[in-house]
Amino acid sequence: MSRFLNDPDDAVTEMLEGFLLAHPELERHGSSRVVTTATPPAGRVAIVTGGGSGHKPAFIGYLGEGMFDAVVCGDVFASPPVGSVLEAIRTVNTGQGVLLLLGNYSGDVMNFEMAADMARDEGIEVEMAVATDDLGAGSNVRPDQRRGVSGQFLIWKTVGAAARQGAPLTELKQLAQDVNAATRTMGVSLNGCTLPGSTKPTFSIEEGQMEIGVGHHGERGRSTEPLVPVDDIVNRLVEEINQELQLGQGDRAAVVINGLGGTPMLELYVAYRRVALLLRERGVSLDVNFVGEYFTALGMHGFSITLMKLDDRTFDLLNEPARTPHFTQTKPQN
Amino acid sequence: MSRFLNDPDDAVTEMLEGFLLAHPELERHGSSRVVTTATPPAGRVAIVTGGGSGHKPAFIGYLGEGMFDAVVCGDVFASPPVGSVLEAIRTVNTGQGVLLLLGNYSGDVMNFEMAADMARDEGIEVEMAVATDDLGAGSNVRPDQRRGVSGQFLIWKTVGAAARQGAPLTELKQLAQDVNAATRTMGVSLNGCTLPGSTKPTFSIEEGQMEIGVGHHGERGRSTEPLVPVDDIVNRLVEEINQELQLGQGDRAAVVINGLGGTPMLELYVAYRRVALLLRERGVSLDVNFVGEYFTALGMHGFSITLMKLDDRTFDLLNEPARTPHFTQTKPQN
Repeated sequence: MSRFLNDPDDAVTEMLEGFLLAHPELERHGSSRVVTTATPPAGRVAIVTGGGSGHKPAFIGYLGEGMFDAVVCGDVFASPPVGSVLEAIRTVNTGQGVLLLLGNYSGDVMNFEMAADMARDEGIEVEMAVATDDLGAGSNVRPDQRRGVSGQFLIWKTVGAAARQGAPLTELKQLAQDVNAATRTMGVSLNGCTLPGSTKPTFSIEEGQMEIGVGHHGERGRSTEPLVPVDDIVNRLVEEINQELQLGQGDRAAVVINGLGGTPMLELYVAYRRVALLLRERGVSLDVNFVGEYFTALGMHGFSITLMKLDDRTFDLLNEPARTPHFTQTKPQN
Repeated sequence: MSRFLNDPDDAVTEMLEGFLLAHPELERHGSSRVVTTATPPAGRVAIVTGGGSGHKPAFIGYLGEGMFDAVVCGDVFASPPVGSVLEAIRTVNTGQGVLLLLGNYSGDVMNFEMAADMARDEGIEVEMAVATDDLGAGSNVRPDQRRGVSGQFLIWKTVGAAARQGAPLTELKQLAQDVNAATRTMGVSLNGCTLPGSTKPTFSIEEGQMEIGVGHHGERGRSTEPLVPVDDIVNRLVEEINQELQLGQGDRAAVVINGLGGTPMLELYVAYRRVALLLRERGVSLDVNFVGEYFTALGMHGFSITLMKLDDRTFDLLNEPARTPHFTQTKPQN
């Protein structure tokens, strides 16, 4: 597949150079792939994340006020090395500890755990919270073996805001785990995606088919089925999600309709319409919504639906201001 | 081509329903496709735009503080009807006049002109500014016959900010024309795009080819050529743009690297990197940048480069706050 790149092997390096040229308020450390905000998070816990590249705006697009203090960038869809994670921890620690937020992928978990152990040996307080919001592989998959997908955006936003409010490390870790437990995601796509330098997509399905349960790396889902109207797709995904979340009369929810990179926003809003009507029918108050591209898989034509059960605290945290290259939020007017 | 829709004929209606459910601070008027902010622009000029749908976040994604007061939505890639444009003008006029911002497409220009005339007959002061930033068809095309493409984002942002500062109608029209005259755009893509309900793309090129000079409706460009590294594409597009803008030592510029809907942000930042390095080599100060999807063509895999020559006034206006569903900006910290 053709792409707008130079040497595909240089894609992440050149992207990072471009990103830092466009956002000079951020800093790159040494020759590594650690990017941080210019101001260290003095007197509070630092929030660090990372993972493979190719998911933009995630992760570096959310570096800044109210979200991340450091991001460690791997190659496209590849875990960042242990040394880089350790460097990120050292760089942003100001003595109040560091919380690592990541998705449940074995390479990421292993490298972040090793870096956390090494940092602890240096006397830095480090905790980790691993997101497992994806129901794509089915509800019979044990919760701790599920992937972290676009529901992570809600973890990043709430935990980032709470860190700025001065919450201590143990409370932030608990918050991340609570938000993760209250959040489920299901994805669907019309194709896989093609890595830079590769000529083949991660998978292909026939025109008129859809893949249910895809991941954020072009992973095949759990079933290939005839494409149906998007209202029917939404009905089904929300139904599966809600078998676990049990949102009902009087509950409050947040939703993310996340485009995977090649999906027109027109389609995302048609999908959102059905989610909103469905939840309204059930008496659920849809108090927060994010519709757009928050966590992509290169140019995949697909989307994911994330639902989260809200309480007063998480509602407030989602509404706190944020100011990052690709997500800016001001206080609501009312 | 498969899409995540219900009946394709309902796509725009359902998208609008979804959009209004997601952004209840906006209002839809009657059964028409006019969307406005909830608060009329009392005591100042109102800014209205519109055009075909399928370009999101343009146009309705920019309704709100610091940008548009009303947007008139047509069908996908189709001009909105005269009656809707007139309704928009009537709805947001508070006696200070209405400025219509639009791109240079014959259907849009005709319908907006007719609506403006009818509004003037009712005693409403209306002016129009038509964007012609696209160099896609070549510099031998007369400036007044060029299309309006992603450079319009810079017009919307500057004019929207100046309207909030209380600038009168004639000054706002002049500002829009000045920004347009200081702005040029060139686009490139790897494919056309497919309209909802259609099975064929607007055009197809072979793998390994690129189309130079594409528009925002999947229009074919001026030439199909072998795909080259993105640095070489950028060199060429910037060169063509700068033959007209003549940016040189000591000049200040704004840039938009606009994804057309299916282009990974990874690629946009690799392209931005080269733009930034090129301008630096020439002694141009790149003071404002926007990298992302600002004005799309459904899911087209392509991007456009917009350059604008800045002065102190337009620099300040681009940095004024904005608060809309898909573009929020806070004052810079310094």
